[in-house]
Amino acid sequence: MKFEFKPKSKNFKKKVTESFNRQKFMELINAELVEVKPGYCEIHIPYNINLTQQHGYFHAGIISTIADNASGYAGFSLMEENSSILTVEFKLNLISAAKGELLIAKSNVLKSGRILTICRSEVYIVNNGIKKLCAASQTTLIELKNKSDSGNN
Amino acid sequence: MKFEFKPKSKNFKKKVTESFNRQKFMELINAELVEVKPGYCEIHIPYNINLTQQHGYFHAGIISTIADNASGYAGFSLMEENSSILTVEFKLNLISAAKGELLIAKSNVLKSGRILTICRSEVYIVNNGIKKLCAASQTTLIELKNKSDSGNN
Amino acid sequence: MKFEFKPKSKNFKKKVTESFNRQKFMELINAELVEVKPGYCEIHIPYNINLTQQHGYFHAGIISTIADNASGYAGFSLMEENSSILTVEFKLNLISAAKGELLIAKSNVLKSGRILTICRSEVYIVNNGIKKLCAASQTTLIELKNKSDSGNN
Amino acid sequence: MKFEFKPKSKNFKKKVTESFNRQKFMELINAELVEVKPGYCEIHIPYNINLTQQHGYFHAGIISTIADNASGYAGFSLMEENSSILTVEFKLNLISAAKGELLIAKSNVLKSGRILTICRSEVYIVNNGIKKLCAASQTTLIELKNKSDSGNN
Repeated sequence: MKFEFKPKSKNFKKKVTESFNRQKFMELINAELVEVKPGYCEIHIPYNINLTQQHGYFHAGIISTIADNASGYAGFSLMEENSSILTVEFKLNLISAAKGELLIAKSNVLKSGRILTICRSEVYIVNNGIKKLCAASQTTLIELKNKSDSGNN
Repeated sequence: MKFEFKPKSKNFKKKVTESFNRQKFMELINAELVEVKPGYCEIHIPYNINLTQQHGYFHAGIISTIADNASGYAGFSLMEENSSILTVEFKLNLISAAKGELLIAKSNVLKSGRILTICRSEVYIVNNGIKKLCAASQTTLIELKNKSDSGNN
Repeated sequence: MKFEFKPKSKNFKKKVTESFNRQKFMELINAELVEVKPGYCEIHIPYNINLTQQHGYFHAGIISTIADNASGYAGFSLMEENSSILTVEFKLNLISAAKGELLIAKSNVLKSGRILTICRSEVYIVNNGIKKLCAASQTTLIELKNKSDSGNN
Repeated sequence: MKFEFKPKSKNFKKKVTESFNRQKFMELINAELVEVKPGYCEIHIPYNINLTQQHGYFHAGIISTIADNASGYAGFSLMEENSSILTVEFKLNLISAAKGELLIAKSNVLKSGRILTICRSEVYIVNNGIKKLCAASQTTLIELKNKSDSGNN
């Protein structure tokens, strides 16, 4: 289910990176935008006790955040220069405990439509160097044309 | 779709509150456990620029976090004294921009089963004192019997 | 979570009924459109052995069908005269065994937006006259303006 | 995201086939169980006007049915000899119009756990011999141990 996509904007990497950097929440949780390709995005979050649930593992909210953002930017990489993006909805399965030193989300676009984009993400936990699937999501995104991503309206 | 539930543990409020307080991530984002009733939970998060996406609104990851946690604790309120809880999966629709000073999640249990519990949450944004629906989720939880919520195994 | 909605088309009931009647699959499974109000739809399917899974209960595919259609027509009731509708996605929890003589789906619009509409449905099973919640869904719909519902393009 | 799985029952194909054949609804819609491998299932449904929505395409309920059943039997192929299976929930995105002569669902297990199994399905429409992705789902299943799939309790 990996497709080849052609980006509509030459500046897709710059556009995604700038949008990511405008998200203050990414800074708070030390999320790192690791890779952007047409229709693909990878984000990492290193372990920090401030990101944990009651058992000391990564909180489901952090797992949702990384899955949602990876999907959003995988989709955004294929959108037009002057478009903004919103998550319409997503569904996330938590598959195994997120116990480890690094959280990795990888997202691929399944369908890039005129209005809607569908993505799937996989989230992995790295524990003592061993990578394991810990969550999987499926997401619907909407492209808002002629609406700057940097504006706040 | 609001049901009457009878808690299995007399200490359900204490149990939920202690579990919530063990989640360091709740402290990081200043989430407040506002109400716990049998099969119901309400959580608030005040606006803070560190919780925002690129347009300065609450990040979808924060909205997911509050919806997931409200569901988890609504379900946990009905579980046995010695049980722990895990989110199996959830689906969240982002309905309107989370632009405002306060985020409120209210979750109700739809079905409290022997193994699985199903909840629905609504997330509201309060902007200049006006409350508006901004997200809605549906969640599946699993009860892990004889597994302490405070242990980390 | 029940809202008051004002339909954009005076003929909303006729529009929904005609669309429902064009769905040959509804005839195959003997589905009946029982009620349409602005932002609300109710559909019934009587038990028939042809609609069953391996244990003789209503098949999950039938439950999905009735939940999806109730949501679709709840949303369609609020759309413009010349619009068509598509289901973007939905999520369904199967809550208890659909063992009984009648399946009932009731759907309500949560948000009727310019492009997207969000609905929630509850599906009940009636067994020996006793009605019980057996499934719950949350759905995203899209309005296709100036596209006839009776055309096939 | 394709994994290698080892079935717990030598008779997994027979078990899946017999369960499929007990579903009267599969007969009504002429669904065909085309392939079963450990953690994988493929189902086909040929076009028939009785399976259509208002535009004459395959109804979303049929697409849900084929996606749900492919997931269910992909998961069931890995379960124990004496286990039964239930769908807990699923989420389905409808990606393009299901206009064509054949519907194909392919499902793979993502995680086969002690109690819960997670699958992803892709549904394709074949139109004039050309195959196109038309839907994608993500599903949670539960294994009911020591509960016969052929019994009706």
